[in-house]
This record gives sequence, structure tokens and C-alpha cells, in this order.
Amino acid sequence: MSSTFGTLYKVSTFGESHGKAVGAIVDGCPANLKLSEADIQPQLSRRRPGQSDMTTARDEADQVIILSGVENGKTLGTPIGLMVNNKDQRPGDYGEMSNIPRPSHADFTYQMKYGNRAASGGGRSSARETIGRVAAGAIAEKWLFEQFGIRIISWVSSVGEIDARDMSTEGLTREQIDANIIRCPDEAAAEKMIDVVKRASFKKDSVGGILTCVAENVPVGLGEPVFERMEASLAQAMLSIPATKGFEIGSGFAGARMYGSQHNDPFELKPDGRLGTVTNFSGGVQGGISNGEPIVFRVAFKPPATIGLAQETATFEGESTTLEAKGRHDPCVVARAVPIVETMTALTIMDFVLRQAYRNQ
Amino acid sequence: MSSTFGTLYKVSTFGESHGKAVGAIVDGCPANLKLSEADIQPQLSRRRPGQSDMTTARDEADQVIILSGVENGKTLGTPIGLMVNNKDQRPGDYGEMSNIPRPSHADFTYQMKYGNRAASGGGRSSARETIGRVAAGAIAEKWLFEQFGIRIISWVSSVGEIDARDMSTEGLTREQIDANIIRCPDEAAAEKMIDVVKRASFKKDSVGGILTCVAENVPVGLGEPVFERMEASLAQAMLSIPATKGFEIGSGFAGARMYGSQHNDPFELKPDGRLGTVTNFSGGVQGGISNGEPIVFRVAFKPPATIGLAQETATFEGESTTLEAKGRHDPCVVARAVPIVETMTALTIMDFVLRQAYRNQ
Amino acid sequence: MSSTFGTLYKVSTFGESHGKAVGAIVDGCPANLKLSEADIQPQLSRRRPGQSDMTTARDEADQVIILSGVENGKTLGTPIGLMVNNKDQRPGDYGEMSNIPRPSHADFTYQMKYGNRAASGGGRSSARETIGRVAAGAIAEKWLFEQFGIRIISWVSSVGEIDARDMSTEGLTREQIDANIIRCPDEAAAEKMIDVVKRASFKKDSVGGILTCVAENVPVGLGEPVFERMEASLAQAMLSIPATKGFEIGSGFAGARMYGSQHNDPFELKPDGRLGTVTNFSGGVQGGISNGEPIVFRVAFKPPATIGLAQETATFEGESTTLEAKGRHDPCVVARAVPIVETMTALTIMDFVLRQAYRNQ
Amino acid sequence: MSSTFGTLYKVSTFGESHGKAVGAIVDGCPANLKLSEADIQPQLSRRRPGQSDMTTARDEADQVIILSGVENGKTLGTPIGLMVNNKDQRPGDYGEMSNIPRPSHADFTYQMKYGNRAASGGGRSSARETIGRVAAGAIAEKWLFEQFGIRIISWVSSVGEIDARDMSTEGLTREQIDANIIRCPDEAAAEKMIDVVKRASFKKDSVGGILTCVAENVPVGLGEPVFERMEASLAQAMLSIPATKGFEIGSGFAGARMYGSQHNDPFELKPDGRLGTVTNFSGGVQGGISNGEPIVFRVAFKPPATIGLAQETATFEGESTTLEAKGRHDPCVVARAVPIVETMTALTIMDFVLRQAYRNQ
Repeated sequence: MSSTFGTLYKVSTFGESHGKAVGAIVDGCPANLKLSEADIQPQLSRRRPGQSDMTTARDEADQVIILSGVENGKTLGTPIGLMVNNKDQRPGDYGEMSNIPRPSHADFTYQMKYGNRAASGGGRSSARETIGRVAAGAIAEKWLFEQFGIRIISWVSSVGEIDARDMSTEGLTREQIDANIIRCPDEAAAEKMIDVVKRASFKKDSVGGILTCVAENVPVGLGEPVFERMEASLAQAMLSIPATKGFEIGSGFAGARMYGSQHNDPFELKPDGRLGTVTNFSGGVQGGISNGEPIVFRVAFKPPATIGLAQETATFEGESTTLEAKGRHDPCVVARAVPIVETMTALTIMDFVLRQAYRNQ
Repeated sequence: MSSTFGTLYKVSTFGESHGKAVGAIVDGCPANLKLSEADIQPQLSRRRPGQSDMTTARDEADQVIILSGVENGKTLGTPIGLMVNNKDQRPGDYGEMSNIPRPSHADFTYQMKYGNRAASGGGRSSARETIGRVAAGAIAEKWLFEQFGIRIISWVSSVGEIDARDMSTEGLTREQIDANIIRCPDEAAAEKMIDVVKRASFKKDSVGGILTCVAENVPVGLGEPVFERMEASLAQAMLSIPATKGFEIGSGFAGARMYGSQHNDPFELKPDGRLGTVTNFSGGVQGGISNGEPIVFRVAFKPPATIGLAQETATFEGESTTLEAKGRHDPCVVARAVPIVETMTALTIMDFVLRQAYRNQ
Repeated sequence: MSSTFGTLYKVSTFGESHGKAVGAIVDGCPANLKLSEADIQPQLSRRRPGQSDMTTARDEADQVIILSGVENGKTLGTPIGLMVNNKDQRPGDYGEMSNIPRPSHADFTYQMKYGNRAASGGGRSSARETIGRVAAGAIAEKWLFEQFGIRIISWVSSVGEIDARDMSTEGLTREQIDANIIRCPDEAAAEKMIDVVKRASFKKDSVGGILTCVAENVPVGLGEPVFERMEASLAQAMLSIPATKGFEIGSGFAGARMYGSQHNDPFELKPDGRLGTVTNFSGGVQGGISNGEPIVFRVAFKPPATIGLAQETATFEGESTTLEAKGRHDPCVVARAVPIVETMTALTIMDFVLRQAYRNQ
Repeated sequence: MSSTFGTLYKVSTFGESHGKAVGAIVDGCPANLKLSEADIQPQLSRRRPGQSDMTTARDEADQVIILSGVENGKTLGTPIGLMVNNKDQRPGDYGEMSNIPRPSHADFTYQMKYGNRAASGGGRSSARETIGRVAAGAIAEKWLFEQFGIRIISWVSSVGEIDARDMSTEGLTREQIDANIIRCPDEAAAEKMIDVVKRASFKKDSVGGILTCVAENVPVGLGEPVFERMEASLAQAMLSIPATKGFEIGSGFAGARMYGSQHNDPFELKPDGRLGTVTNFSGGVQGGISNGEPIVFRVAFKPPATIGLAQETATFEGESTTLEAKGRHDPCVVARAVPIVETMTALTIMDFVLRQAYRNQ
């Protein structure tokens, strides 16, 4: 197990679907940040299942409780305990699957690694595990915005074969992104995406997608060469989210097909007097260190593994069988992944900001 | 700075192009592994520049010296000090660039982060930094092969627009991959790739590419949910390599366009009696834990930033200027990146093997 | 803040006196350990204030709740969330002290470090912080005993000027130690100690003391040279307990006055066939590694800082004033410290056992 | 193995007596510190054996070489590689001991832990291991003095039964301490101590001793509750030094015999306007955090284990035998331990200074 993230803003998470609660401890949050549950709840609510008929119908309240580290509405500088109670457990739905590891799910690997399984199968591979990090990251988002004006925005840029058009993120808000249930600010594409998800849902199938994320107003100089280059830590953060299969920053895989003369980002003097770049194929990092341009990256999510469609597979003992998952399952997770990607980005940047602080002495 | 990688097999590296030496300390290598410099040198030699006229001409011997941790040809269990002397420093070639940050290079960000620069510009962003990790990873490769028969093989699967065909890795050897200078085992594609690099070199330009890597015989159960899922740690390891822009495992970004019914890997009984999967879109991991199938991933490398072609850019002060890099520079780094990707993979898996050990008590 | 302890058995704690709860996350507990709250509660109850009229009268139930990581009475291998609700907060008692930092208390340093203070003064310096670690350590104690028969026993060996006689720990049980309220198994000394505490209490003063701790059946080979030698990690663990001023192992400070010919522990063949030592001035460690003999160490606790006696001191602004603490306060903490010392020892050894595991492959 | 110390000023060491070299990597040293080998060498030379006829006669030059991280006389902010070549190895002297584990030495435990032994016995338990830390700590000392005026001074306060008198450290310099070979600034006591060592040496015996250390001008607010309280980290640092058996801060073990009314340090306004304490039984820390008073602690060293006197002991197989160590051995290590204690203190404080920096944003 490795449920701790960060060096100075250190987040430890706990919990699976069927225990009493899930949550996190945030160790290293600066003192005197104004903080209450109301600052954390919005991202948790965006993460919650059951926000639309496109996601699973479980109406979990997911109300966060601050257990420690805050008094009189301000952080003390001590560890912040965060907890969300589990309410709707319904272990019965999963019980009958027990002898058939769900294909591409964590049932098999958890069984092999731990010699047991949580009632929900791959216990900590559940999306519910992400509650702790979203709560911890929401605190980081608040501090980063107040200290540096850092804005982190993510949206769904692909679902299945449907791609959103490239678009400027200037002035783009979370409200605009949340304007449709697939969280894609390209309205025309959003309609098609929703259609793809609905058809997949109708067929008891699932479909994957891609998120784009942008962090603006990130100070120059963040990232810790060599093993914690900005892009290395972001990649780790993103691939630690369930169902992710890929990460690319700036030009990404397309950049591998380019020539240096195309790909290099020339410098120029920006209107605000800082040295910036004309293009941003680098995605806001050079040599592993933020260069003051927006940090831009994309994260690939596979289609959810649990589907109602019949699948030919085998039992734990290797006997051929057919599996049809019962109950309702998310046909597509990308809309709910938006706050997870944003808050994991916040956790990554937050740690780098604190680690960079001493260099300014 | 964050130059330490791993929890139990802990590698700390040091060195930039113009100091006395580069190297690493390996803390946590099990005792009683037979080890000499001859076990480490081959991967260092594959990493070395000047292996062909396609890479920079500097003939650095890069001979590794074991400083500690080995006696009578066996590891003691104590830290292994590893060092490679710097020989060919030629600081003059870089000196004249000092007032113009090279576009998409680390000159600017290192200056901004540290308030200084190494003679070579972005000191630790140099490919020379990777020597320490390659040496440390070569030791891990040896131990993993001897203990589990783990084989790690990487090759160049794309250069610019040229893609190698999909191919089985069964029986594929490093000798076959090294049979051509671009390290692509698809001979027809290799010829075209070499041509692309030569033309880029002739134009004083550079070109990017993609590496594929496969790790075979990896035991089931490795990877530490949630923040050090196997794919998260591999992603961090790969994006910590200079010039990387993307990482994808198994189906990767293409998987985000698929349906669950296509993407799921059904289970079946394998001839050797283990439960395996029919397909491997998962890339050998489920829920962040190895499932016994080959671990397969791809890494995108951008075109090298330093090119001889004239570039319109700006000085540190923001004045417009034209930059033409002098001297010889790698037009393409992917062939040399092969041993780096392999050894970083070894470091990642090695740490997980040691961390899993106690569960078998 | 640094509220995480351990590398593989990683414990993160949270909470201060006046929040909603205190607790911990245990990340890295092996799967399939039988575990319920009843295994953890006894050490928490021994730690609790109000066990006798010698400790503060607050009757806090301190009932532990397992939030995650356990299903069907067995650990899953996932993080174990542990929580104890805060009930009796009484912030009023402390409120009036706010402008006078209590001498030798953490009021002043917390204010200076964090720019604020918890209602209770030095928030995480409160003994209540230790609840999380005691709960986490009680789990480690159970695993260590079941796997290796390791027994960890601590007792009060001095209070003020009263010393217990040297005694064999063979067969010594926690029940015997708990037979008197000062937790000293030398009954004659215990009576005198209790008298010392009562007189201090009557005078509204406080008094210090020393704990001895023994860990038996610890396997040979534990401890990680060089910075995590067994004694270095034990020293860190013990000095992280509030009110501690010193740590010594084996001969300790007295050993500094001895000659090598007296101090060396000669080897001999033990009846059970292992190579052991005739004496144990080393305290069970040599070169930072356990040698199979009992690990024996002592921890010094200062007298509690909060006393009812009038003290001449100064306000935060430096004005002279007199302070008399209101309310009831512990005149001596050593009896309650017994389970804290034991469980911190368990945390230290547990981590070393897991880290040593891979060497046995 | 655990050869890395520190979170932000991270020191990794390598090397044993009989390899090619010993040394360290310092990762996290701030950029732009003026640094050359001449800044590091003095503490290494003070640590060196053979400084007098009271220490072993091996005349090792122990010249440090900076391998990386420094250019044009200033640190780059990148890892600083530090190396000292091993010259005088004389493995022959130790060879004949191989079947008899030296009593209270690390021969037995290293053999049991690692299944092998370095030629010198307990490889990393050798005093030669400390070279890397002393070099790394000398850099920290320089930075701490330049940034905060922090002065760290240690001296020998006891040898065997001889104690130095209590003395003010105001104005005390390393030159004064080095004025006699036992490094005790109480000249009268020093003479007696030297006599004790000489007599022990003549008898082929060894003797222990105690060091006192003071760190002055340490800013208020350093130390990270709860597991890295200032005293916890200092205790770990000190007990990681070979041959140490105890650590106490401020009143230490004597404080455990005191009453709160005696032990509490009342506050008063200091002439320089800060709030300080009248007494310093706390030893400069309260609640694990520095309070601006001098940090004062003591470290107990046992008598060296290797003595020429005949010892009745047993072979690895358990057969009774007599051991007389050949060659010259240190009869007392405390004088040489002075720079080790000082530099480990510097490493501890340095890390806390960097970790505290972000709170000042």
C-alpha cells in the first residue's frame, strides 16, 4: 500500500466502498488559511455519482466533515482530518460475482496481492477511494488561488470517437464546463458525446474518454529535477487515478512526430514584462520546471470495466463461464473524473510551491 | 532538487556535464548478488553518445567505477557507490549562448529556479544526468532476471511519421534491437527512420520519436495502490527522463476511444496453469497491480531542443534575436533512450518486488 | 508538521484536544490479520486519563472506531482508518491563559511557529495527540506477537528520586505492572512513588520520572544502518512523545563511564542453540542491528509543565505576571506513558520487520 | 539499509573501510552558496584518526573531492557529490578475526543480517562511514552560519569517571576546544581525561565518554511535530553515530528527578526585545519546537569494542575461545566524535530551516 502523496503537503487517504468511512489526513497545510467544509464540498459534489442519469444512481450525500486542524474557521497548521461517511453499501449486488473475477477489473489482482478481497472486489481501486484526495486537493486549490491566483480547470475533450474542438481556456470557468452533464464546453461536441454515452448505456456497454487540464498563473520555477520533474509528478498523480491509461503534456505523443524547428517554443517579451514563449508545445514546463506558461496536459481514461453485457471469461479456478454484471454501473466516468484531475493537479502544484519556498529566502 | 528514486531500492544520482563526475548511490540492493563493473557497463555503453554518426560525436568512454558496496565480487547489502568521470567538457561551445535561453531547453527555467546556470545551461536536464540511473538500473535488471527471469526490452517504434509495425516480443533480444543504429527491430521501418534522422541532421534540425517497452515474467501482485500504482510509478519514471512528453500503458490513448466490451481482457486458463487474460489491453496491470501478463507501455520523446537551424527568439532581457546553435547535436535521442527506458523500468519493478516481499511471510 | 512515522508500516496521525476527533491511518498493515476494536482498546484505555485519582479526572471514553481496512474481522491490506471522538472539551478552562504562555509548555513555540494557537495551547503537543499512535501501535503489537512471539513490556522505574530496584523481566506481565496505579512492579518502590506523586499533587506541583522498556523475542537482524539504526529509530520514537527529555539503550549514560573490558558482551552458545551474549550492556543491539538479546532502554520524562503553583513569568508582550493554572492537571504522566512507550516500540520494530522481509527471499 | 537523512536537505552516504572510496550526495543545498573543498576539509580533518597518539595511527589524508553541484565556486542548487578516497586498507589485520565475532562489535549482526561481512567486519558500522555525513554537514554549517549566524559547538564533557565542570559556552570557540587533544575546554579536567585514556591504552583497554553540544542563534519555530520534534530528530541523528548509547536534551535524565516548580523555565523579556526564558532546563525546545534559547544536549559514547585485552568469548559456531585484537585501536573515540556530533546537528537544523521556510511566505 502506498496511500500517501506529497513531501511537504502530505496527503494520506483511507477507505473503500464498504467500510464505515473514507477520508484523508492533510499534513502540512499552512496555518491561517480560512477553511470550512463549504470550501471542500463543491468538488466532492462534482465527483459524486448520481449527478445525472448518465452516472450510477447511488445518491450518496458525501458530506465532508473536518475532524481536526481547523479552529475558529482557520487552519492551525496541524494535520487536517477529513472524513465522509459511507451510507449506501449494498454489498449484495456484488456478492454473487465472487467466484468470477471481473475482466479488466481489480478483483483478480487484489486477490492475488492480498490473499483476500473487499466485498466490493478490488477495494481501493474503487472510485470511492478518490474522495479523500478530492477533499485534500480542494483545500490546496483554495490556498493556491489565494496566494498566487492559480486556476486549475479540466474538461472532457473526447468521449469515444468524439473530440471537442481545440479551444482557448482564457476566461473558461467551471460553471461553463458544468453547463452540460458530460462537462465538455464545446456544446456541439458535448451533444454527440452524450449521445455516445447514452447508446453505450442502452447496450449495457461502457465507453472511454479523454480529459484536458490547464493550470494557469503557475509561478516560474516549480518542479524538482530529476525524479520529480513537474511532468513526472503530474504523470504519477494522473496515472494514480482509477481507469487511467495515458498522460501527455503539451505536444505529447503528437510532439514525437514533429521536428525541432516546429516544436521549439521561441521566447518573446510578454506585455506584462515577463519573458514568455510564443507557442506552448512544451505545455508549460522545460527541463521539468514550470516556465510561467499555462501547464496543459491530457489524461486518457479507459471504458469502465464493469458492464452489463455478457462476457465470456473464466472463474478464479480457470473454468470458462459467462459474466453479466447486475445493477447499474457508470457507462462513462470522464465527467466525474473532472474534479479528480483538477484536485490531483492542485496537490501536485501545492507540494512544489511549498518545496520551492526556501529558495526565496 | 529531488534526485532520489525508490523506497527500498533507493537510487540517488548526482552530476552534470561539466563537473568532475556523474554517478549514483544504490541503497537497498540485496546482499550476495554477484556484481562487477562488467555487469553495468553494457547499458552505459548503449546509452553513450557517439555510437553512430547519428548521435553526437563526443567519444566519452563512460567507464563505470564501483566505489563501495561490493567485495570479492558480491554485494555486501550496503550502499553501492557508482561513478563515471567526466572527460570531454568543452565548456567553450556553450559559453556564447549565455545570454540567449535556448528555446524549449532548460536554460530559462534553471536560471529562474536557481538564480544561476551550469556552464551547460540546464545542468541536470542534460542527458548526461541519466548515467547514474542507468548504472543503478543495470544492477536491478541483473537481480530481477536472476530471481524471477524478468526480461525488460525496449525499442524505437516511431521516428517522426514513421511507425514500426506491431510485432511480437516473444524471443526478441537486445542484440536484435541493436542490429541497426536506430534500434528498431522492424528492418523496413528502421531504414526509413534512419533516413528521416539523416535528413533532419542534414537540415540542422531534429526529430522526435516513440519507444515501446515490454517487461516479461513480472510476478502477479506488484504495485502499491493507490499513489504508487504500477502505471503511476512507471509514468513518473518515464516522464523523469529528459525530453519525454507522454506515457501510455496497454491500450493507452487509443483505449479511450474504445467500448468496454472491446477493451475488457477476458480471463482464461493458460497452458502453464495460471489464470491469464486472452487480450492485454490492460498492459499487464489491473487496479494498479501487475496481473502476470507482459507489462507494455510507450513513451513519447520530443525532438531535441538544440538545433543548428536559425531560430527567432529573445534574450533573457527580452530583446529579439536569432539563435543558431554551434557544434554537433543529437538530431534524435530515441535510440540512446532505449537503455534509459529499460533501466528506469527495472528500478520501478525492483522497488515493487522488494516492497511486496513481506506479504509472502 | 510531520505526523507520519515509518516506511512500510506507515502511521499518520491527526487531531488535537478541541476538534471533533483524533486518530490515525495505518498504511501497510499486512492483510489477513484478525482484528477488531477489542484488540486496540486495551492500550487506549491504559493511556486514558482518569484511571486513578493520580491522573486528571476527565472521564473520556476514548472508544476507538475502525473506519476502514478491516472486513469480516480481518485486515484487507488496505489503509486502516482509526478514530476516537473528542467528548469533553471544556475550552473555558484554558481560555483565560491566552495572554500568558505557560512556562515550559508549547504555547509560546506554537504561537511563534504557526502564528496562531489551538484553544488548548500547543495543539499537537497535547497528550491527546498520542491516541492515534497508541491505536496504530496496538495493531503492530498484535501482529508482532502472533508472527514472532515478540513481547514488549514497559514500566515506571523512577519517580522523582525514587528508583525501582533492578529486576528480571522474565515472566513479567502487563497485569503485574498494572497491579498498582503507578505501574511499577517493585511494590515497595511503588508505594514510595505514589507518595511522591500525592505530595506533589497536594502542593499543586508535578514530578518527573523514568520508564524502562524491554522487547523480548526480537529476531536477529532488525535495524537499518546507518541513519535508521535500531537505537536511532527508537530514540526518535521515544523523543517524539510529549514531555520526554532523554533516551538511553543498554548501559546508556552509565556505559560512558565504563571500560571496554567491562562493557563488552562476550558471546556464548545459548541452551536453545543460538549464539547469544553473556551480558547485555549493548541493550540488544550491535552496530544498529538487533542481536537477538532483549532490547532494553529507558526514557526520561520531565515533570508536567502545567502546575497550579504560582509562577513568576511574563506575558507574550513581555510584561511580568504571575500564573496559576486552574483546573485539575496530571501531577505525573509516567504511568499513563507506559502504553505510549510500548506502542511506539511496536511501531518501530514492526517497520523493521517488514523492511527486513525481502532479505529472506 | 537506510543511508539517507533529511527531507529537503537530503544526504545519502556510501562507503566502508575497504572499498575504493566513501562519500555522500547532498541533494537540496540552496544555490549560490560560496563553496569549495576548503570549507569542508577542516571538519573532516578534525574527524580523522591519527591526530594524536591517543587515536589510531592510520594517517589517512581524507581529502574531500567535490564531484558535482559546484561551479565557479558557487553551488548550483543541484546535488553535490562528495568523495574521499580510501588509502590505507590493511585488510590483513582483520582477516584472522573472521571466525570470532568481536564482542559488542557489529561482526555478528552484519553477518546475520546480510549473510556476509565486509573485510572489516561490520562494514557500515565503521567510524569511516561518518566521513560522508561530516562533509555534508560541514556545508550545512556554513550555510546556517551565513544565513542566521547559527553556531554549533561540541566538546568532551566526560571521559570515564572524569567530568568537566559546567561552563558557559558564550564565546567558546572550536580553537579553544581543540587546544587539547581530548577536546575538553576545562583544562584541569582535560588533563585527567587524557590520563584516563592513556592508562586505558596502556592496558590495551578502552574507555567511554560523553559529549555536550550547544547550538546558538537557532531561530524560534524549528522542528516538526509530532514525529520530527526537534529533540526526536536530534536523538535519531545522534544515536545513528557509531558507539552511542544515550541522548538527553536540557535537563535530560536529571530532569526526571525534578519537580515542575523547579523545572519550568519562566519567561522574561530579554534585552534584545525577544521573549526568552530565565532558565533553560528545556534545552531550547518546547513542544518539539525551538524556542530561541540555545539548544543544549548530551550524547553518551560507550568504550570502543575492539580492545587488545584478552576476552573470553565464542566463535560463530559457539565454541569457547579467547580473542585478543591485534593492531592499534582507538582507546577512546570521543575527541574524534566532536565534529561528527556538530555536523549531524547541522544536518538536523538545516533540514528544519528549509522546511520552515514556506511558513514565512
